[in-house]
Amino acid sequence: MDFFFNPRSIAVIGASPNPLRGGNAIIKNLIRGFPGPIYPINPKHKEIEGLTCFPRISEIRKPVDLAIIFIPASLVPETLRDCSAAGVKGVMIESGGFAEIGDEGRILQEECRAIGKEARMRLWGPNCMGLVDARRNYVFSFLAPNLWAEGFPPGTVSIIVQSGMLSGSFIADLVSHGTMGISKVCSIGNKADVDECELLEFLIKDPETAVVALYLEGIPKGRLFLEIVSQSSKPVVVLKGGKSPQGAKAAMSHTASLAGDDRVVQDAFAQAGVIHATDFHQMFDIARALGLVPKGLKAQSRLAVVTFSGSAGIVAADCLHKCAIGLADLSAESCQRLKEFFPSWMPVSNPIDLWPAAEVMGAVAYHRAVEIVLNDPGVDVLFIETFVGGFRLDLDLDHIARLSREKGKPIFFWIVGTQKSATEFQKQAQGLGMPVYREISRAVEAIHAVYAHGMRRERVIEKFPAFVPATMEETIREALRDVDPGAGTLDEFDSKKILKAAGIPTVKEEIATDALQAMEIANAFGFPVVLKGLVPGKIHKTELGLVKLNLRDKAQLLSAFEDLRDKIKAQGRILIQKYVRADFEFICGMIRDPQFGPAIMFGLGGVMAELFQDVVFRVAPFNHRTAEQMLNSIRANKVLEGFRGSQAINREALARVLVALGWIGTVVPRMTQIDINPLAVVDGKVLALDATLILENNHEVYPETQRCSERKS
Amino acid sequence: MDFFFNPRSIAVIGASPNPLRGGNAIIKNLIRGFPGPIYPINPKHKEIEGLTCFPRISEIRKPVDLAIIFIPASLVPETLRDCSAAGVKGVMIESGGFAEIGDEGRILQEECRAIGKEARMRLWGPNCMGLVDARRNYVFSFLAPNLWAEGFPPGTVSIIVQSGMLSGSFIADLVSHGTMGISKVCSIGNKADVDECELLEFLIKDPETAVVALYLEGIPKGRLFLEIVSQSSKPVVVLKGGKSPQGAKAAMSHTASLAGDDRVVQDAFAQAGVIHATDFHQMFDIARALGLVPKGLKAQSRLAVVTFSGSAGIVAADCLHKCAIGLADLSAESCQRLKEFFPSWMPVSNPIDLWPAAEVMGAVAYHRAVEIVLNDPGVDVLFIETFVGGFRLDLDLDHIARLSREKGKPIFFWIVGTQKSATEFQKQAQGLGMPVYREISRAVEAIHAVYAHGMRRERVIEKFPAFVPATMEETIREALRDVDPGAGTLDEFDSKKILKAAGIPTVKEEIATDALQAMEIANAFGFPVVLKGLVPGKIHKTELGLVKLNLRDKAQLLSAFEDLRDKIKAQGRILIQKYVRADFEFICGMIRDPQFGPAIMFGLGGVMAELFQDVVFRVAPFNHRTAEQMLNSIRANKVLEGFRGSQAINREALARVLVALGWIGTVVPRMTQIDINPLAVVDGKVLALDATLILENNHEVYPETQRCSERKS
Repeated sequence: MDFFFNPRSIAVIGASPNPLRGGNAIIKNLIRGFPGPIYPINPKHKEIEGLTCFPRISEIRKPVDLAIIFIPASLVPETLRDCSAAGVKGVMIESGGFAEIGDEGRILQEECRAIGKEARMRLWGPNCMGLVDARRNYVFSFLAPNLWAEGFPPGTVSIIVQSGMLSGSFIADLVSHGTMGISKVCSIGNKADVDECELLEFLIKDPETAVVALYLEGIPKGRLFLEIVSQSSKPVVVLKGGKSPQGAKAAMSHTASLAGDDRVVQDAFAQAGVIHATDFHQMFDIARALGLVPKGLKAQSRLAVVTFSGSAGIVAADCLHKCAIGLADLSAESCQRLKEFFPSWMPVSNPIDLWPAAEVMGAVAYHRAVEIVLNDPGVDVLFIETFVGGFRLDLDLDHIARLSREKGKPIFFWIVGTQKSATEFQKQAQGLGMPVYREISRAVEAIHAVYAHGMRRERVIEKFPAFVPATMEETIREALRDVDPGAGTLDEFDSKKILKAAGIPTVKEEIATDALQAMEIANAFGFPVVLKGLVPGKIHKTELGLVKLNLRDKAQLLSAFEDLRDKIKAQGRILIQKYVRADFEFICGMIRDPQFGPAIMFGLGGVMAELFQDVVFRVAPFNHRTAEQMLNSIRANKVLEGFRGSQAINREALARVLVALGWIGTVVPRMTQIDINPLAVVDGKVLALDATLILENNHEVYPETQRCSERKS
Repeated sequence: MDFFFNPRSIAVIGASPNPLRGGNAIIKNLIRGFPGPIYPINPKHKEIEGLTCFPRISEIRKPVDLAIIFIPASLVPETLRDCSAAGVKGVMIESGGFAEIGDEGRILQEECRAIGKEARMRLWGPNCMGLVDARRNYVFSFLAPNLWAEGFPPGTVSIIVQSGMLSGSFIADLVSHGTMGISKVCSIGNKADVDECELLEFLIKDPETAVVALYLEGIPKGRLFLEIVSQSSKPVVVLKGGKSPQGAKAAMSHTASLAGDDRVVQDAFAQAGVIHATDFHQMFDIARALGLVPKGLKAQSRLAVVTFSGSAGIVAADCLHKCAIGLADLSAESCQRLKEFFPSWMPVSNPIDLWPAAEVMGAVAYHRAVEIVLNDPGVDVLFIETFVGGFRLDLDLDHIARLSREKGKPIFFWIVGTQKSATEFQKQAQGLGMPVYREISRAVEAIHAVYAHGMRRERVIEKFPAFVPATMEETIREALRDVDPGAGTLDEFDSKKILKAAGIPTVKEEIATDALQAMEIANAFGFPVVLKGLVPGKIHKTELGLVKLNLRDKAQLLSAFEDLRDKIKAQGRILIQKYVRADFEFICGMIRDPQFGPAIMFGLGGVMAELFQDVVFRVAPFNHRTAEQMLNSIRANKVLEGFRGSQAINREALARVLVALGWIGTVVPRMTQIDINPLAVVDGKVLALDATLILENNHEVYPETQRCSERKS
């Protein structure tokens, strides 16, 4: 990839002397920032912007690392062949007119991809804005040169977006405001070859990048993406636009209906440690904080607020409380030292309201307070609220930044103030490593992301994905051979065979072929028992009157058996189960997400499952640690501790069920949906009382799953 | 109040020639904007800033409407007496050193208040920044004159804040940015006399104010505040800082523990139609939209998005979806007309992505699209996303605003762009009545508030508070006389007597003084029955083993009776109830909130009450309509329709219970907490199965309650 980011020479195919054309902007941008040889290519001109212009790339006769193409789409394939012949290593196709315009363009794009692959020449784009490297002033793009006339505010945040328009307009916005430092901006367009996963891996290794922010709509290689993020030591912030593409499968199972539009994406991001943004500037604001405070903050870090306004301090405390960020208790010594310059009537507490003191002493009150607070061993991070451009509050930012560095305690600012002063303050403070915000809630969101990144660094992240034990793989396959009736839905009895093979405990049950056998089984199990009529394809047995609960004696059993036999006729079979009364009901299951593959669900069962949709998903396979996190992630996780006097629930056993579901989903790509509903807790034990597994015959093996396992081998 | 906002003449007590003093700033500010006579008062000077200076107010010998005081606190009382003697109508005390500094200052403030009351002279402050009227350039404040050197951006948003520092710093911020039009800013400080309720009433009637935004910490006159807002036709936006002050009562009841830190405030705001802000700029951003689109938007209004970036359109759709704002379906004609200038490969849908068209046509694409969309009868409101400062997208805002006005369809903007162009665009568009935002989610929050205001105008708001029927009042009082055991907790039997008096259905029950009587009652009720031991002050009977459920026959009953008699000894009494099995359990109750008075709670009962805290509060008394809204407001409101085959729940009966609880809370100020837990649904009927009422002897009648009822008479 280095020939895209650090080419030794660049050819521009479609260079133009006309300043209204993108092909001219590319040349001007390169002249302004790129120190290596630049070769304009255009058969109609001898010279462009003072550079010798070549009719074709083959005429250059010097090595060309990178070719930027900005010519009509129909001419691109031939040009790529030229590039290949000339030994070009990477091509950035910035022209549009490919897959985004429909079938015709798709065919053209595929042709380009094939040429690149054949020639082992990497393609970036097409239909993109290219690349900006703000630290080097590299603009490999038709971005209008006047938009970066004043240069870029250099920083450590790198950005990946698909859309060219989006990257271009945001670069212009951020550059003109000057308060968001960036490293590299990659606009990757239609991703014929180079894609977000590859760039993300590159940028995570890039020493000039501390944080990567991505705007993504689809994540076609969802599993690979999660894998890269989960193994990254640098924070990755993602704004995911658009609802998750629903799988082709109908939502027959509860699990599928609970997956909703966006649920699996949200939870998969949480699993891998993606920091999830919700809007554009918010993404940049969060990335900015992570770029300036790359180490993050430990979970238990205590925060102090120093403010010029009691009210602003209160609003900060409210926002911090919502994010569960703890306010520091100031030490007795700190309180004493603050009291020395506080009015006598004023109590000292955190948030620390400096106003009456600052009214008298101006900025000195801030300087003294910041020093006291940073010296307090009970304070790990400082949030300063101040006014800029008046009230004698001209802070010595160099001094404050030095204290912050010495103590290793990051400082965040929220400022109110006159426009010009506020912008200057922001530039200066951020140049010194202290992020500045104009809205309290936004500042707290950024601080929260810095905590989240710190916690991610603290905990050992489970390698994603985990492996399925080889013996387990064989056991599950074997169980499947035993039951496989071709495509479709397995009945409850067959479904549970697979679950049992994976080690999931199920209720005691047998198929009864006639009433006599049913009686024998019931006697062996002990009354009461349950009878169920299993009819192929009928999942919702209760609604069809196919479930006979709590049969207490022979008479009830026989009558129920008769009734079921009449109902199902010869279409199915009758299952007899030990009747158990659940102390508590959970629901769990699996869906196969089109982006992420098998995703396991866990949540509250019964009426609550539908009323509160209190469920969590994780992408499988995963180990015990992740399963434990799932248990903790439901809102009602208190029930696990034993609620209202009931005994604590066996977490270990619950977690094992979830891990095993993940194995099944991984081993059997044809398995599209699983429901265990309910997963009951009976006398402290965990039991699958009812279950449905849905298979598909003509399944597609998801490409990202393949890619993932290829990487493993 | 008019003498504060439109005085004919102003005296400034504490005027100073020293430009570093607030007493000088006040004079300079008045000279720059106030057209009437200005009288500096200072015995040490003959002239200040070219104006004749008087030694005392009595020497002016001309009528003075308003006196602004900026002298040491200790001198204020005497000065107030002078003002009174001089016939001053209103005094703004901007000096600090009063209640905010503790007891000494509190005494001084009380003295001032008494002087004002005695003299029928109104006081504003003390410890405040005073008043700014941006439309008249009235700055009755020591705000530094350079902070408004360029004048104010005039608008229709009026602001009330307690803190002087906050109002001063935000005025400076907003003025320098020039993109937030304001009408009046009132900094009211310690509120010795004039308070937020009175100012709110004034501003709601003020023709130059379209929307009022308030930052509040406490709302001491909570009920009056709700009443004013609920009767206002203008939107009221509130940012409430700090957690709600918890009542003095311990949270003995479930209801009190479910009230949490902020719950009652949130719900009371929803009840009165307050638009609830969460941060400072957000409050201004929302108020700005409401000021420019004062009519609001109807609930069913359909929104169209026109954008230069598909991605930005997607993020807008995501944000709108979260707020349940519906995207318009474009008419066939609109689609046809858009297709005329769209590339042939591009499908037309909403969000309308103009990029390929705008790449060719520039701003013309926007002009054509806006006209088409505003002419579409299926579109009621337009959200335009655009780039400012490049890409040939110079929109003709006059033209767009004219179309918007002609069609009566409001337009909101989100812009990306270079700093200077963006600020200019924002000023121009907002001057034409179209709010502009820099963050999509913020724009959508503002649009959402405009919808909320429109819906508030559509629905007939229930007058707050409702009345308690006179006969009901007498009935409840009588029931209370019957049971009142002095201060403390009523036992279950007595509690239910009060509930029954208010018309709340309860389970069949009687006190049994001996086993024989218990048998007789059980025979009359029919088995099974329940026995409960009622011991004064013991609320949690189950935990103490004082509840014997489901007694099926004589033997069980007698044994249970013996056991309870031994347990309670002579301290209590034994209650016998018909045993009923609840199909569903709710919980409801009352707490007396220190700010809002009696607040009624309704929510899911049983384990779910504690796991999900799915409850709602409303301030009582209220009518049936509000009770119905409460039922709809719980997250799990689906259960009311009959869930999973169970029959629909009698909403009418549930609502009646809630209204009746409100009556009890209103009629009996000594009633501090009520729990009905569970409020059971049994065969479609609603029954209070258990209940506890808590009384207090030395109750305080909450002043705001008094004020409210005074106003009624």
